[in-house]
Amino acid sequence: MSGNSFGQLFRITTWGESHGKALGVVIDGCPPRLELSAEDIQQELDRRRPGRGKGASPRQEKDRVEILSGIFDGKTTGTPISLLVWNEDVDSRPYEELKNVFRPGHGDFTYQAKYGIRDHRGGGRASARETIGRVAAGALAKKILQGEGIEILAYTVELGGIRVEERDQGEIEKNPLRCPDRKAAEAMEARIDEARLRGDSLGGVVEILARGCPAGLGEPVFDKLEADLAKGLMSIGAVRGVEVGAGFQVARMLGSECNDPLDSTGFTKNDAGGILGGISNGADIVLRTAVKPIPSISVEQTAMDSSGRSVSLRIQGRHDVSAIPRINPVCEAMVAIVLADHLLRQRALKGE
Amino acid sequence: MSGNSFGQLFRITTWGESHGKALGVVIDGCPPRLELSAEDIQQELDRRRPGRGKGASPRQEKDRVEILSGIFDGKTTGTPISLLVWNEDVDSRPYEELKNVFRPGHGDFTYQAKYGIRDHRGGGRASARETIGRVAAGALAKKILQGEGIEILAYTVELGGIRVEERDQGEIEKNPLRCPDRKAAEAMEARIDEARLRGDSLGGVVEILARGCPAGLGEPVFDKLEADLAKGLMSIGAVRGVEVGAGFQVARMLGSECNDPLDSTGFTKNDAGGILGGISNGADIVLRTAVKPIPSISVEQTAMDSSGRSVSLRIQGRHDVSAIPRINPVCEAMVAIVLADHLLRQRALKGE
Amino acid sequence: MSGNSFGQLFRITTWGESHGKALGVVIDGCPPRLELSAEDIQQELDRRRPGRGKGASPRQEKDRVEILSGIFDGKTTGTPISLLVWNEDVDSRPYEELKNVFRPGHGDFTYQAKYGIRDHRGGGRASARETIGRVAAGALAKKILQGEGIEILAYTVELGGIRVEERDQGEIEKNPLRCPDRKAAEAMEARIDEARLRGDSLGGVVEILARGCPAGLGEPVFDKLEADLAKGLMSIGAVRGVEVGAGFQVARMLGSECNDPLDSTGFTKNDAGGILGGISNGADIVLRTAVKPIPSISVEQTAMDSSGRSVSLRIQGRHDVSAIPRINPVCEAMVAIVLADHLLRQRALKGE
Amino acid sequence: MSGNSFGQLFRITTWGESHGKALGVVIDGCPPRLELSAEDIQQELDRRRPGRGKGASPRQEKDRVEILSGIFDGKTTGTPISLLVWNEDVDSRPYEELKNVFRPGHGDFTYQAKYGIRDHRGGGRASARETIGRVAAGALAKKILQGEGIEILAYTVELGGIRVEERDQGEIEKNPLRCPDRKAAEAMEARIDEARLRGDSLGGVVEILARGCPAGLGEPVFDKLEADLAKGLMSIGAVRGVEVGAGFQVARMLGSECNDPLDSTGFTKNDAGGILGGISNGADIVLRTAVKPIPSISVEQTAMDSSGRSVSLRIQGRHDVSAIPRINPVCEAMVAIVLADHLLRQRALKGE
Repeated sequence: MSGNSFGQLFRITTWGESHGKALGVVIDGCPPRLELSAEDIQQELDRRRPGRGKGASPRQEKDRVEILSGIFDGKTTGTPISLLVWNEDVDSRPYEELKNVFRPGHGDFTYQAKYGIRDHRGGGRASARETIGRVAAGALAKKILQGEGIEILAYTVELGGIRVEERDQGEIEKNPLRCPDRKAAEAMEARIDEARLRGDSLGGVVEILARGCPAGLGEPVFDKLEADLAKGLMSIGAVRGVEVGAGFQVARMLGSECNDPLDSTGFTKNDAGGILGGISNGADIVLRTAVKPIPSISVEQTAMDSSGRSVSLRIQGRHDVSAIPRINPVCEAMVAIVLADHLLRQRALKGE
Repeated sequence: MSGNSFGQLFRITTWGESHGKALGVVIDGCPPRLELSAEDIQQELDRRRPGRGKGASPRQEKDRVEILSGIFDGKTTGTPISLLVWNEDVDSRPYEELKNVFRPGHGDFTYQAKYGIRDHRGGGRASARETIGRVAAGALAKKILQGEGIEILAYTVELGGIRVEERDQGEIEKNPLRCPDRKAAEAMEARIDEARLRGDSLGGVVEILARGCPAGLGEPVFDKLEADLAKGLMSIGAVRGVEVGAGFQVARMLGSECNDPLDSTGFTKNDAGGILGGISNGADIVLRTAVKPIPSISVEQTAMDSSGRSVSLRIQGRHDVSAIPRINPVCEAMVAIVLADHLLRQRALKGE
Repeated sequence: MSGNSFGQLFRITTWGESHGKALGVVIDGCPPRLELSAEDIQQELDRRRPGRGKGASPRQEKDRVEILSGIFDGKTTGTPISLLVWNEDVDSRPYEELKNVFRPGHGDFTYQAKYGIRDHRGGGRASARETIGRVAAGALAKKILQGEGIEILAYTVELGGIRVEERDQGEIEKNPLRCPDRKAAEAMEARIDEARLRGDSLGGVVEILARGCPAGLGEPVFDKLEADLAKGLMSIGAVRGVEVGAGFQVARMLGSECNDPLDSTGFTKNDAGGILGGISNGADIVLRTAVKPIPSISVEQTAMDSSGRSVSLRIQGRHDVSAIPRINPVCEAMVAIVLADHLLRQRALKGE
Repeated sequence: MSGNSFGQLFRITTWGESHGKALGVVIDGCPPRLELSAEDIQQELDRRRPGRGKGASPRQEKDRVEILSGIFDGKTTGTPISLLVWNEDVDSRPYEELKNVFRPGHGDFTYQAKYGIRDHRGGGRASARETIGRVAAGALAKKILQGEGIEILAYTVELGGIRVEERDQGEIEKNPLRCPDRKAAEAMEARIDEARLRGDSLGGVVEILARGCPAGLGEPVFDKLEADLAKGLMSIGAVRGVEVGAGFQVARMLGSECNDPLDSTGFTKNDAGGILGGISNGADIVLRTAVKPIPSISVEQTAMDSSGRSVSLRIQGRHDVSAIPRINPVCEAMVAIVLADHLLRQRALKGE
């Protein structure tokens, strides 16, 4: 229980279901006297809204954030910041027929097994709308990081089996998939169109880069920086794998290839992804997450109903083809939250 | 700070440096009335000792565990269990010349950057000996899990670029690399011999399987089961990536391939790796970790010394070629600790 | 930081300022399938509203609670429960002149010292309105406790120097001060009238009784039941002391007087207040808290302004004469929250 | 569970039973580069040893502390500090006859009720020897506080019904009871002699003073400074009440008496005990704890045995008449630990 909070000093608690009244987050431990407006948060929320990119569902909430506490005269006060987004565009009727069906790839079966009750409407708490709170809190975390010159960027490096061959950061904002390789982006869009026609969905890989992070963040041996980052990213619904730096590729490297030499100029390459011994080393932090295909597909599937019988299922309704690129700002948010938390933890230590 | 504890209800705190007086762990929250002997723990510790398998270093501690508290009449009492292993076979002289050198691939540079001081002897706190406390605590966690019929098994599925082609569990205990494919095991051993001759080291992939886990473990949305497992595994020194079920392969799958159908007989395949919506679904839990090559190599490297100058470095002394297979019981321990913790958390909920 | 959450398994996070948009609480870890309506919570909130009893201020919010998440079909789902109360009747103008004054007995000076910024309106986060979240969460905790036959009752045993001479529980609901001694209640009311005329305020003592609590709650050695109860009660704004059972009176007792004998019928007296060795013993849990006089008085006082100058101050506006009896349901709530949390912690243990 | 850790950033975990092999503590989160020797800790441990003062038992351990980790070249390294004291002078035979008896005033009954098993020897985990870990950790906390000019002092203000009439701090170290009033000290000693002759025991009140504490420590609304202090003190075995500043006396004060005026020179009195709104205000922090009489008395008592029958009991063996003055350094340690923890928490905030 109590699994809905994250972070130690910069600590967020999210709440809300897809078709409930509202969703929100409480951020505790935000340093005082940071300038913060609803617009700062809204910008981030708008980046995760539907209708942004080819893979998107047509659900069109406005998702306007309200700041309910913790801000005075446009500045944080050090008291908890409560942020809320009302659920406006909710039509639960399509879910009525799914009430007693455990959809493949969803948490329906496991929520029922765990709690003995579940809000089936729109996936309830297991909906991707849950990430609204994360992204809103991430906007604050980014504010803290900006003060230290740290910047977070998430972009798409693989989608539907197509991988980028180059990483041109100037390209990222130019295509709706946030892909740093223009040619790859076009091929990805085509792949999305195909999948949509078939009523199927696609997975991919998001890479997250943190630039400007000072050496010294991370608290071995359990709260190593990559350990907390892995937890944060793996806690996002669609993520099935996390790697840092060379990641799984280390399995095929020699020690003499994998080690990053450092000389009087610093590290001469960055297969470590900016983290050594669980502590940031001053280089760019580089992470990748594996994102599974959206489980709601209109292709026919076999499922179980709540009485234990097999049923055939075609999921109707508005669904994205891929969690990418809407998941990208969520990945950014989680990385920002972890870094902000560790930045505060390191301040406590350095104060000495 | 306070990064040396792990778990919520079953909570471990480890301490100790490679060349300090001793290493140990305090386990708090272990249920009372479990039978436990030093031998139960020793068996697990012996599995992570050096000299087990081809890639091993010759350091030969006995690593005898002492139980200092929490056990009475051979049973746990519900009070904290303190376990200690003395550091006996310590020769710090070879490290004297490394005192002012930041070895590539090690935490030397980052510990210095973070704390402004470090125990350089044998890697200090960043040594793999730190995992003694994890493995000792894992022995207790396994006891708790056994009472529920849950079993954890870690084995090698890739080493030095060689991947298993089959998973014959009967084979695992028959070769020192804990590889479930006899032919692959032989090729891996040959690869280790080559690397040792060159003074180089090898990475690989360890797969961890948890069988018999009931549906219902995991606490969304942040303490999802895979999120805590990812943190636990990623907190192990050499681990650079973690994936669950199909893992990074989901990036190349269609939704219709990736979803595990469930019918009246249950799940008909297991690409989810036993976890849906952050909660165990009753199927086998399957995880993989990417293990980097041992950074201590006798191949010549460029390093920085503490005054910021470039130095040439050849690391002498006793070092494994690969963290595999000694890391396997550490992976088992971390998975056991996470599952035991979530089992207790679920009991609190189910008690209702 | 992160000081706005309380509890381990039953965990509450409160937020909100006196004159902000709203106040609220998120409850994480509430067991699923409990029946809960807004009315259940409203009843408790109504007990802490102004205008209840002689010492009350005329501020007349409706303080209607809204349930925003975590409830489905009238039952808890195991997901976080977000409760919100809008601030409706807010007039911040009287506080404008206090903007730069540190009022004696208030947190004005210390909030400024700590955060370098403060919301001065109505005391901001330090207002007694902050307890709305506690009382709302306490309503849930009471639901959990009711399921185990545990009942919490707070009543007034001293006010303005007048102490009760008897504890007739039937009397408590019959007078607005929740005093179990009718004669004392009348004298207390008279004392309140006097103090109000003088523009002064009064302190007192609230006793809290928990009946039906099973033996076994409490987690030594730091999370002893009385330790968590003391923290919970001492975290209420006006509380300056907490004692359990005979409390400070133990200083004047012999061991042979203080020890509660137990024989085949159980404990034959209860000077321990139901807790031994940090664990409930099955007897009534008895606690008392010292409640300081409301610091906002219209008697002239010396204060400091934000430029460090002495100023003379007469606080105008609507203020209670005593925090009693409005603080009583807050005390009940905190005791209920601690007991519910420890009940869940004990379930995790007993599940074995 | 997991109740054996305390603190957020400066976090201690204690372990050990009275008649087990050893007792100890792990301190995580201690800032690096503090000079620390075993002697620094030993000095504090010697202050809580038996045989110091009239009320003392003759048990004569040496209680030599061993530092097992976290110190290098005489300085803290930022890694966990493990401290251990062996149990040398253990004779468990006198406890054999108490094996099946629940002694009044002890945790015997409740430990059995909670855990279904207990180490009866010397009170097991519920023994006052458990405080060794607290005092050892407190020595570190004091080091941190000294660096900020903060000093903690605990002294006896009441014992066996005798209260001090003056607080002459120069007197404290001059008498074994740590009483700041020489005449009162003499009367207390006489009272102890009487009680010892009768085989009875005495309670008292310890006052704790923290000088030099900056304004700004404490994290409202739940981790208020007095709330954490109350928890820390109430978690000590014999403590039955905690108050801050005027404490329970506030119940009899008018607001105009209770409020501490502040003018251009600061606070002109200190009934708040140095804490306002849950945050230190820069004045001395003043706390008092009610200490119950030692429950082990040779006066005849009625008890229950484990089969539920009434038995008559006279406890033999070596027992103090009063927990005072040995509890005084334990109170100091807990206050030091809370203040050190909040100092680090405030650093994280102030770093901004």
